[in-house]
Amino acid sequence: MRQLYEQALRDIASGSAVLGTGGGGDPYLGTLVSLQALARHGPMQLVTADELDDEALVVLPFSLGSPVPLIEKFPLGKEMVQAYETINRCLHGRVKAVMPDEIGGINSMVPFCIAAQLGIPVVDGDCMGRAYPEIQLVTLTMHGISACPFAIADEHGNSVVLYTIDNFWAERFARSISVDMGAICAAVAFPITGKQVREAAVLGSVSYSERIGRAIREANAAKQDAIAAILEVTNGILIFRGKIVDVQRRTSKGWALGECVLDGMDSDAGAHMVVRFQNENLVAMRDGEIVASVPDLITILDAESGQAITTEHLRYGFRVVVLGMPCDPKWRTPAGIELGGPRHFRYDIDYVPLEQRFPTSSR
Amino acid sequence: MRQLYEQALRDIASGSAVLGTGGGGDPYLGTLVSLQALARHGPMQLVTADELDDEALVVLPFSLGSPVPLIEKFPLGKEMVQAYETINRCLHGRVKAVMPDEIGGINSMVPFCIAAQLGIPVVDGDCMGRAYPEIQLVTLTMHGISACPFAIADEHGNSVVLYTIDNFWAERFARSISVDMGAICAAVAFPITGKQVREAAVLGSVSYSERIGRAIREANAAKQDAIAAILEVTNGILIFRGKIVDVQRRTSKGWALGECVLDGMDSDAGAHMVVRFQNENLVAMRDGEIVASVPDLITILDAESGQAITTEHLRYGFRVVVLGMPCDPKWRTPAGIELGGPRHFRYDIDYVPLEQRFPTSSR
Repeated sequence: MRQLYEQALRDIASGSAVLGTGGGGDPYLGTLVSLQALARHGPMQLVTADELDDEALVVLPFSLGSPVPLIEKFPLGKEMVQAYETINRCLHGRVKAVMPDEIGGINSMVPFCIAAQLGIPVVDGDCMGRAYPEIQLVTLTMHGISACPFAIADEHGNSVVLYTIDNFWAERFARSISVDMGAICAAVAFPITGKQVREAAVLGSVSYSERIGRAIREANAAKQDAIAAILEVTNGILIFRGKIVDVQRRTSKGWALGECVLDGMDSDAGAHMVVRFQNENLVAMRDGEIVASVPDLITILDAESGQAITTEHLRYGFRVVVLGMPCDPKWRTPAGIELGGPRHFRYDIDYVPLEQRFPTSSR
Repeated sequence: MRQLYEQALRDIASGSAVLGTGGGGDPYLGTLVSLQALARHGPMQLVTADELDDEALVVLPFSLGSPVPLIEKFPLGKEMVQAYETINRCLHGRVKAVMPDEIGGINSMVPFCIAAQLGIPVVDGDCMGRAYPEIQLVTLTMHGISACPFAIADEHGNSVVLYTIDNFWAERFARSISVDMGAICAAVAFPITGKQVREAAVLGSVSYSERIGRAIREANAAKQDAIAAILEVTNGILIFRGKIVDVQRRTSKGWALGECVLDGMDSDAGAHMVVRFQNENLVAMRDGEIVASVPDLITILDAESGQAITTEHLRYGFRVVVLGMPCDPKWRTPAGIELGGPRHFRYDIDYVPLEQRFPTSSR
């Protein structure tokens, strides 16, 4: 068990945005809320999966919906507590810890806010090793673990509990409810035991985020190359350097859908890249050909600071680099590719691991 | 307590369709299912509100959604039992009886099917004295009674429980879930005590339906005027005789929306009537002027048999009469008119009680 203070929380938020592949909301908002929780409730406790008893019950709290309304409507107040209390009541008060469902700007921080209020620990891990825009897209689904009981709550005091036969139905109902609740709401779901965490989750991803965030911070403080520092602590590959020349964005069914168009710079001058997203970045196309795709991670970073730019913050004129990172090995199994690969998002291509398209020599 | 057998069930289904104002689904389907339940489980028990203990817990089981898919997908099997068991679990197993939420073809019969299976009684009453297309449109809402816990289930085994701050939110969430479940699903909601039934429900409406159904049956058997027989046992007013010359119908947000156009016959020859509906008939316009509106009842009957024609069975060429009936007095209070009157359905007119537009002399 480790206690986390301000610096650790800031580094986790910043690093998780790099792993968040454009989704998960603005890491700055997540930082603010977690720092407020720190000031009010004292340091957060981070535990490793190994520290959990086999039967200890863990739940995943997360904001559900589109990141677009997050700036004006932030589901981390009493609605998150209400969703937690609702699921804990369904589970007869047996919840012992929380864990992020995904690694992404806001949802990496949500568990810390609620854990601080409740005085329970956060598990160092998540269920994607990245961010994904649909509920069933977690490694738990591959292990046959149900998302239910699945509690949802809004800022008015409404709550809904789902009991579904699989995680695809949970996604369907939860998405509709999130739209009815104003496109963003609080969710607490996926009750799992300590044993299941060790078997089915992506372990250590919170501290991995912290290492990435620290590398960015230290590079900037020392006026060194932040992008190089990220490549140093991750297994990422720099796949494009360019300037944003167009952003298309719309909100549909509670998702932020769109694409970002880049004109190449430096060694990529003359080339073009299009990054398409559904909350998260899904594919990167260079001159019309897909060169990176889910389940691998695609993140757009500010070329100077190395800070990740979430899909709702992409703007014309930004100088950026596009970073690709190999996904967790669970996503590279046949079941993983079927669940979260390109065909799930209607790209009729075979998944090719990032390292095969960008051999080490070209890094 | 009375035991109900086949004849009573048939009469209740037929009579409740007259009070169902075009909605609630095909009474024939409701009859079939209740007769099957009768054959399997024995006679149903009908109790009056007076027979309920003050604290006895009653719930309302109903099919939720559009009547359109009812013909191919009928939510009265295991999904209705699942919805009942879900709410009963939330209420710690204290449910003692069921009651119709509305008087309309299918939803009048739903409580009998589930009550027969469970061996519990049906209360002689409902919460509208008619049918209405939205969950909050019950007299219980006027009395501040919550629809929650509100259980919903589908034929796949999925269930959802709503806990909302008011009945308008329950409508909003339940409607989305019903669409996700294929436009029709099973619901059990509105836990109320015997005392609340007596204060806030419309009492005796099941036996009132039975009397109407019996009058229609006996008139047809004796080859007498079925319409006259209905007017005899109700306080209804015959507001138009005509032939259906057009029906517009579409399914939107899980409702059957549309209108039926009639060319006048007999004393109404040369005139036209348009009846607009949202599952249920909302307004009747004679030559462009609204002559009857919610909360009063508007039902289209077959001119020969007196059988009510639900909105999904309206067809070109049918000879029909349009029957108006004054609503329950609860709907004529300012709160009732605000809740279920014309403005709720976006008709910007003041409600005028039916009898004022059609004085007794013109009957």
